[in-house]
Amino acid sequence: MSLLLDNQFKELPPDRAVDTKLFLESVSHIPSFFDCLGSNVFSVIKSDINGNIVKIKAVYLKDPARYVTLQDIVEAERDAHPAEWPKVGATLALMWLKRGLRFIQILLQSLADGERDENNPNLIRVNVTKAYEEALKKYHGWLVQKIFHVALHAAPYKSNFLKALSKGEEVKEEECLANVRQFLVTYTATVDAVYDMYSHLNAELDYTV
Amino acid sequence: MSLLLDNQFKELPPDRAVDTKLFLESVSHIPSFFDCLGSNVFSVIKSDINGNIVKIKAVYLKDPARYVTLQDIVEAERDAHPAEWPKVGATLALMWLKRGLRFIQILLQSLADGERDENNPNLIRVNVTKAYEEALKKYHGWLVQKIFHVALHAAPYKSNFLKALSKGEEVKEEECLANVRQFLVTYTATVDAVYDMYSHLNAELDYTV
Ligand SMILES: CCCCCCCCCCCCC/C=C/[C@@H](O)[C@H](CO[C@@H]1O[C@H](CO)[C@H](O)[C@H](OS(=O)(=O)O)[C@H]1O)NC(=O)CCCCCCCCCCC
Ligand SMILES: CCCCCCCCCCCCC/C=C/[C@@H](O)[C@H](CO[C@@H]1O[C@H](CO)[C@H](O)[C@H](OS(=O)(=O)O)[C@H]1O)NC(=O)CCCCCCCCCCC
Repeated sequence: MSLLLDNQFKELPPDRAVDTKLFLESVSHIPSFFDCLGSNVFSVIKSDINGNIVKIKAVYLKDPARYVTLQDIVEAERDAHPAEWPKVGATLALMWLKRGLRFIQILLQSLADGERDENNPNLIRVNVTKAYEEALKKYHGWLVQKIFHVALHAAPYKSNFLKALSKGEEVKEEECLANVRQFLVTYTATVDAVYDMYSHLNAELDYTV
Repeated sequence: MSLLLDNQFKELPPDRAVDTKLFLESVSHIPSFFDCLGSNVFSVIKSDINGNIVKIKAVYLKDPARYVTLQDIVEAERDAHPAEWPKVGATLALMWLKRGLRFIQILLQSLADGERDENNPNLIRVNVTKAYEEALKKYHGWLVQKIFHVALHAAPYKSNFLKALSKGEEVKEEECLANVRQFLVTYTATVDAVYDMYSHLNAELDYTV
């Protein structure tokens, strides 16, 4: 479970403010998650997410002392670009990044909860579809939705996916899922905090791509 | 026809060696071609092609005096990386870039030749499909081929496509196609020269993605 658990997200402080530096460090290990989906097709998603991270990091590095929390960045951009905001800069990048993070969260949670297609217990399509429907579908037009359904056929078998999450270590499925549950605690808390911040600041958009 | 004709490719010398600097300058205008396909979905292709160009340029800039022609680069990489070559560096980038260029060439040529679906004269699907089948299909696995067929539905109407090529200028269809024909002369010669160079150096691969 090296990939996931080696990079456990940090616990949030009582006010649930997300520390920018710690967040960037934790999410920097996320793009490689898409490698373990197996097909090169997912490199498209990997680079989309990586682009989001690069964009947020670039803003942070301009003034680390000013942008201690993610909310500091979003508020600073709101004040600096009132006309375009929130469709601008790191605010837009984080808006999309959090959706990719939510997708991963729901996928892993669904696996950890043992949700499965009884007729195809070694497929993860039901879990991927659930994650897609809850995290992304409404932001995708018909074309990207159709492409999703095609790409779904490239999703790996559950056994291979869990093995890849564990980076080839010889862990049993139950052990691997226990690690996933452990990972999800601070991960889910962080993703929830970012979502709540967007809703609180009215920074969420629902245009489709 | 500003987009295309403003950036006419240069004529080749008698030995058909492609000057690296002139080539890079000419192809740098190509990625924006995919903007005029209309859908944001094509930004994936745009950035793939742009990545190829960036990679070739980076190698060129390391030693412009040494890499006067594209063949100079490919041969230098063959000698420097005998084990991996040709799946390496600018050789690999140009291998894929030329396929994208060929795709565009066949698409434009097919339009210039008046090939069309008589039942849907304002669609360019037959032209796009022809270009895809001749330039790319054999390098794509079943999944990417399926995604192509879905993406095909996002192809623009012929009238809009020609208008976009002309960057909104009020040119008649026949005039626009005459400009396309004009553009294709040196463009096709350049693409052919790159293909011949790959075949001559045995630098072509046919693995699928
Ligand atoms: C040869 C034929 C080829 C035909 C070409 C076909 C190409 C098909 C491409 C399909 C789309 C791929 C997915 C990418 C979608 C992206 O378009 C969206 C929005 O992307 C955002 O857009 C913003 C502007 O609106 C900014 O640019 C953001 O960038 S910014 O940083 O600049 O602000 C950017 O992330 N991201 C998304 O939807 C996020 C996706 C998250 C991950 C989803 C996991 C799904 C896993 C599925 C498993 C089965
Ligand atoms: C939310 C759900 C999302 C699900 C995700 C779905 C994502 C679907 C992605 C589909 C693929 C998009 C097209 C990209 C294909 C690329 O994979 C290939 C090979 O790309 C090459 O690969 C090499 C390594 O093998 C190097 O990395 C090259 O890079 S290097 O520079 O590093 O050496 C790189 O160009 N390029 C291609 O096939 C080239 C394509 C050329 C243009 C084609 C025009 C087609 C127009 C079609 C009009 C209808």
